[in-house]
Amino acid sequence: MPGRDSEARVYLLTPDIYGTNMNDLKVRRDACFGEGSTLFYNEPIHIVRGEGVHLFDAGGRRYVDMYNNVPSVGHCHPHVVEAVSRQISTLNVHSRYLHEAIVEYAERLLARHHGGLENIVFSCTGTEANEVAIMMARAATGGQGIICTDAAYHGNSTEIRRLTHCRAYTGEVRSIPFPETFRFDQIGTGADPGDYYLDKLADVIAGFKRDNIPLAGMLVCPIFANEGLPDVPGGFLEKAMAMIHAAGGLFICDEVQAGLGRTGLWWGYEVMNVEPDIVTMGKPLGAGMPVAATAASRDVVERFRRQSRYFNTFASSPGQAAAGNAVLDVIESEGLVESVASTGAWLRSQLSKLQDRCEAMADVRGRGLFVALEWVKDRDGRAPDREGAIRIVDKLKARGYLTSNAGAYGNVVKLRPPLVFSRVDAEAFMAAFEDVLTHLDD
Amino acid sequence: MPGRDSEARVYLLTPDIYGTNMNDLKVRRDACFGEGSTLFYNEPIHIVRGEGVHLFDAGGRRYVDMYNNVPSVGHCHPHVVEAVSRQISTLNVHSRYLHEAIVEYAERLLARHHGGLENIVFSCTGTEANEVAIMMARAATGGQGIICTDAAYHGNSTEIRRLTHCRAYTGEVRSIPFPETFRFDQIGTGADPGDYYLDKLADVIAGFKRDNIPLAGMLVCPIFANEGLPDVPGGFLEKAMAMIHAAGGLFICDEVQAGLGRTGLWWGYEVMNVEPDIVTMGKPLGAGMPVAATAASRDVVERFRRQSRYFNTFASSPGQAAAGNAVLDVIESEGLVESVASTGAWLRSQLSKLQDRCEAMADVRGRGLFVALEWVKDRDGRAPDREGAIRIVDKLKARGYLTSNAGAYGNVVKLRPPLVFSRVDAEAFMAAFEDVLTHLDD
Repeated sequence: MPGRDSEARVYLLTPDIYGTNMNDLKVRRDACFGEGSTLFYNEPIHIVRGEGVHLFDAGGRRYVDMYNNVPSVGHCHPHVVEAVSRQISTLNVHSRYLHEAIVEYAERLLARHHGGLENIVFSCTGTEANEVAIMMARAATGGQGIICTDAAYHGNSTEIRRLTHCRAYTGEVRSIPFPETFRFDQIGTGADPGDYYLDKLADVIAGFKRDNIPLAGMLVCPIFANEGLPDVPGGFLEKAMAMIHAAGGLFICDEVQAGLGRTGLWWGYEVMNVEPDIVTMGKPLGAGMPVAATAASRDVVERFRRQSRYFNTFASSPGQAAAGNAVLDVIESEGLVESVASTGAWLRSQLSKLQDRCEAMADVRGRGLFVALEWVKDRDGRAPDREGAIRIVDKLKARGYLTSNAGAYGNVVKLRPPLVFSRVDAEAFMAAFEDVLTHLDD
Repeated sequence: MPGRDSEARVYLLTPDIYGTNMNDLKVRRDACFGEGSTLFYNEPIHIVRGEGVHLFDAGGRRYVDMYNNVPSVGHCHPHVVEAVSRQISTLNVHSRYLHEAIVEYAERLLARHHGGLENIVFSCTGTEANEVAIMMARAATGGQGIICTDAAYHGNSTEIRRLTHCRAYTGEVRSIPFPETFRFDQIGTGADPGDYYLDKLADVIAGFKRDNIPLAGMLVCPIFANEGLPDVPGGFLEKAMAMIHAAGGLFICDEVQAGLGRTGLWWGYEVMNVEPDIVTMGKPLGAGMPVAATAASRDVVERFRRQSRYFNTFASSPGQAAAGNAVLDVIESEGLVESVASTGAWLRSQLSKLQDRCEAMADVRGRGLFVALEWVKDRDGRAPDREGAIRIVDKLKARGYLTSNAGAYGNVVKLRPPLVFSRVDAEAFMAAFEDVLTHLDD
């Protein structure tokens, strides 16, 4: 397509702006991405604009976004847009020149963490942040063994994929069942749930020792987001961390989903009362600009840097810093962490009240604005009802609410709006949700 | 730092804008990044603004950028800035909704490639693009063995690091010596250089076979950028690709450094007359926005997608598309590929003329605006002179030209300006460079 003009092209909300219909666009998309590149919903949507908690499709229809955690301060927040636009018009270059903004961002992000996290390594994606964490743990301990849970997702690289839905009990990456209480009685052991999962952890630690694979550490999402936000036996993470430390490993929390206010606290590890040795961050940091980070003690980071000479071309750039600082500005100045806590608590309390009316909605769980509705075929047997959850997602979409299904069994209706989702938004959602329940069999 | 105001902060070119001096900034940087986070130059520079081929430090000093390949269309190109700013103020969200711009970008990028590259997978960094390529080759062939060269750099993840300065001759990743003619006579074999390196490749292929590790493929930078842009024995890549195919593997070119016009052709593989099975792209694609991509045949991409269900949160976004399309607009409308070819040829011819005057500058190599000056201790022995190269880099910096040293021995002065570096810029540089040579012993 040589010779095209060089005007900046604008994608505004205008019906048929592209002179193409959705089917044509899907055919073109499949032709260059391949058919294995998935789209959400049985009938995909063609989104052209976002503002606050709203997304708009090419036909002008408005949706309330209750899915996206990357634009956590709201789609196209003017402060973020202005900060990034100004910075990329001024300078955007790699980090081997001195630059104030990225240092300020590092300082601000570290100041939000527990005191043991002293140094930071920026990267571009959650996958890269978890790569750095694993390399750090291995560099700092000299060990190779990594423990994860069996229904997690931590990223898409060769090494991090080994931690994804891991069922390995040999080799350098091994898993334990993710801790939960909802179906624990069905496991058929008389044990206390906490003891049960800690015993599984002890087994894996012993297995590494038996196989002469020194332990590097354990990596978990502190709220087990991909597992479906299970209620975790009390004190589990605290005790697991102590066992990992006793075995010579480091405890790593993946805050890519849990962090930056999502739970109504700054970090998921605060929810769980642990102070991890290494923390990884991603999705919401840059409001759509790829920004990710890994923080640890000065000693751990320096061992990693010495061993790896890590450098990431696009990371620690002025552009990343502008996006990251602006997101922190918004979270702080709009009091988002506090509003997430109160709006989330109200939303869960209202949803819980509906459980009596809806046999299929067997559990309402979550933290802050991250809510899981457990959909089951029957209340007693609690057999996961993935199709039921997808039906709810489709009915909510028809009413203008974008959600998804998730969890280890795909039967969890996941509600995860941008953090700016307000009490008024929550009230409107509850009306729509009640309506969905009323017309469940339509 | 709670309670800070939420004004968009602007980083303009004003001396002492931060009320801090460079040493304070370096101390703060070390305190949060760790001391292993390197800065360029013995005396680091504090860059605050970029425009075209120029960078400006906090004291207002102007440098000609002859290092950066990410802002290849020039620092802060107004068309790119406007396109990205408009897009992030309109929508920037993940790729599981339909969006026109990323489809258009995929089509435009693929249209610039040879016809066998039919489908594309976007990611955020060169590391991720190479991860995807390796996973693709393994998924498509069912093999695990990967061959690289011994002084390459392809990225910073656990798996891709195995291909970095690889000296392994066992395991799944193995290397051959990078092909070159400059010091070939010193290897002391009577063989033809082309035959020598192809024999090394045949040995590695045979080794994989002997060890029952089926071959997945070979990954090289087609111009061997990190190796110091060596002159490669004629037809080497073509013959290597045929051998890889005969052994059941796929041939992968890493175009992260070589691609998008750098060589005076669109892709490095065109320089070398090969049509690789898989191509990876990165650095210059998004002019500072993290954008990377991996292209291959439809069959290879679909096998990969089926096996991996690959998804990358920040990739294929409207923001990536805006940056990528705008960069293509500039390259096409400003005729950059053609100007790179002519400016680069002129620059190399002028540099070559100076070789008689400067014993240490034993070779002038490169393609387009990617030039390598081989610095040696003596012309006959050709012992690499890393310190000499660094001295030239420092003297050029003192004259306002930012370059670096590179190559397998660190003795290559690397000239790699943004593609908008013009004939006039090149003439000014030559005057400065001649001056450096004249005052070499000052």
